[in-house]
Amino acid sequence: MHERHPTAQVVQVHDRIFLVDCGEGTQMQMSRFKIRRNKISHIFISHLHGDHYFGLAGLLSSYALNGRTEDLWLYAPAPLQQILELQFQAANAVLPYPLHFVALQGEQDLYEDKRLVISCFEVDHRVPCWGFLFREKKKPLHLVGEKLKEYAIPSSFYRQLKEGADYITKEGFIIKNEWVTEAPSPSLSYAYCADTAYMESLAGKLKGVTLLYHETTYLAASQEKAFSRGHSTTVEAASLAAKAGVKRLLIGHYSSRYEKLDEFLEECRPVFRDTSLAIEGVTYLVS
Amino acid sequence: MHERHPTAQVVQVHDRIFLVDCGEGTQMQMSRFKIRRNKISHIFISHLHGDHYFGLAGLLSSYALNGRTEDLWLYAPAPLQQILELQFQAANAVLPYPLHFVALQGEQDLYEDKRLVISCFEVDHRVPCWGFLFREKKKPLHLVGEKLKEYAIPSSFYRQLKEGADYITKEGFIIKNEWVTEAPSPSLSYAYCADTAYMESLAGKLKGVTLLYHETTYLAASQEKAFSRGHSTTVEAASLAAKAGVKRLLIGHYSSRYEKLDEFLEECRPVFRDTSLAIEGVTYLVS
Repeated sequence: MHERHPTAQVVQVHDRIFLVDCGEGTQMQMSRFKIRRNKISHIFISHLHGDHYFGLAGLLSSYALNGRTEDLWLYAPAPLQQILELQFQAANAVLPYPLHFVALQGEQDLYEDKRLVISCFEVDHRVPCWGFLFREKKKPLHLVGEKLKEYAIPSSFYRQLKEGADYITKEGFIIKNEWVTEAPSPSLSYAYCADTAYMESLAGKLKGVTLLYHETTYLAASQEKAFSRGHSTTVEAASLAAKAGVKRLLIGHYSSRYEKLDEFLEECRPVFRDTSLAIEGVTYLVS
Repeated sequence: MHERHPTAQVVQVHDRIFLVDCGEGTQMQMSRFKIRRNKISHIFISHLHGDHYFGLAGLLSSYALNGRTEDLWLYAPAPLQQILELQFQAANAVLPYPLHFVALQGEQDLYEDKRLVISCFEVDHRVPCWGFLFREKKKPLHLVGEKLKEYAIPSSFYRQLKEGADYITKEGFIIKNEWVTEAPSPSLSYAYCADTAYMESLAGKLKGVTLLYHETTYLAASQEKAFSRGHSTTVEAASLAAKAGVKRLLIGHYSSRYEKLDEFLEECRPVFRDTSLAIEGVTYLVS
């Protein structure tokens, strides 16, 4: 509606890209916006309403047609596994790549590499539904080159310094870690809250997140409708952002009843100033 | 690929419109091309490869969201029923309209109204796959006004005249039907041959069809590949059109390996002159 497509987000962390939700037409949008879909190895599906996953079977089929061989991990509500299996079976298709299905349950870590942890948490929608939290791990301390020289610390000890250790010289003097290091750049985080009614308990879980994506299906006047349908309003999303003390708020998932989106911003900003509208094809920096 | 979408066709017969196949993005294409989707009550799915049905669940969901209450008939390979049921179940969705699922099997009539019969027939693809034949019924004879007057035939007998009866006057004279009627306009027909390898036996079944849609996934040079993948080449489609003595041929379902389509026409026309390329958004008259 109004030229808006169903939900899909690509989250890039360093050189990795992750796909979060995959509504109908996601493949075509990825071509349009020059997303390198072959770099995606981990796909996260929040819930099984069609506007969040009806593009997935097509994407998985295209990977097969294009001869993908790299492993693919799919984190999704459990019933999706059987749906996909029936679809592949009906198409007489054998995927040429390993597809690892991980059924979401409760709150858990889903993915970890040396710099990043991705976890899921339950939200409050009409069907089982999860949000996803991307969190950079604590970064190593930053070494101050001239101080290292001044105290003649051997490079073999740098790794320990980065982790916070003090250095003890041969003579037994203690070179305190804080004399030769600086705080690292902050660990960034991104939370995707999927489709959810207002849920105050998220504020604790998402404390201090760098960028919070929260749905605002409705304007504030439709609060009752939002509640009854498991969705949120502008003011609710902004209140949560304020309570959680996040740095920035990104809103989206606007009902098709609204053609223009200006009011969404106008209603959020008095409650939480640093709010942006999620717009198709636009990249938002987590910083 | 090359801005081409997966398969979907809308067939309009008098004031009814029918949807044949429903690849991913069909809904969006229908909006783009101003198709009145709410007028569709019968959907035909040829086979369960994703490029022919991955847009269906989205369309059925949209009908539900928009509060459709009219009956919908879905003619499709049997396994689709369970796939859709699981999808609705996972979405906790109850359709507000009756959805009648008719599993395709063999060759059979699927739909009939006073002017039209739609039937399916098996084609030869990698999974069970059907084509669809839309055939206008034999039309009533055309009455010639001045002749009716000349022979003073009462209007109460017109219906019988249209069906071919002779009229016998009170005096016992026989007014032969052919003196007061003319042949009706010809009954038109449209055949959709889905995805199929070349299948000579179709020529008999599709004898004299007005417009034949036949896939041409490949150019003639790739005949072996076409055969092994259950598809057809340009020359094969054109040969079938010639053998069946159809009036016109419409080709489509071009492999994404081909960017330009000129050669498809160039290869067909020496074999069957009245060939057209199926192009997105274009309407083809069956006449």
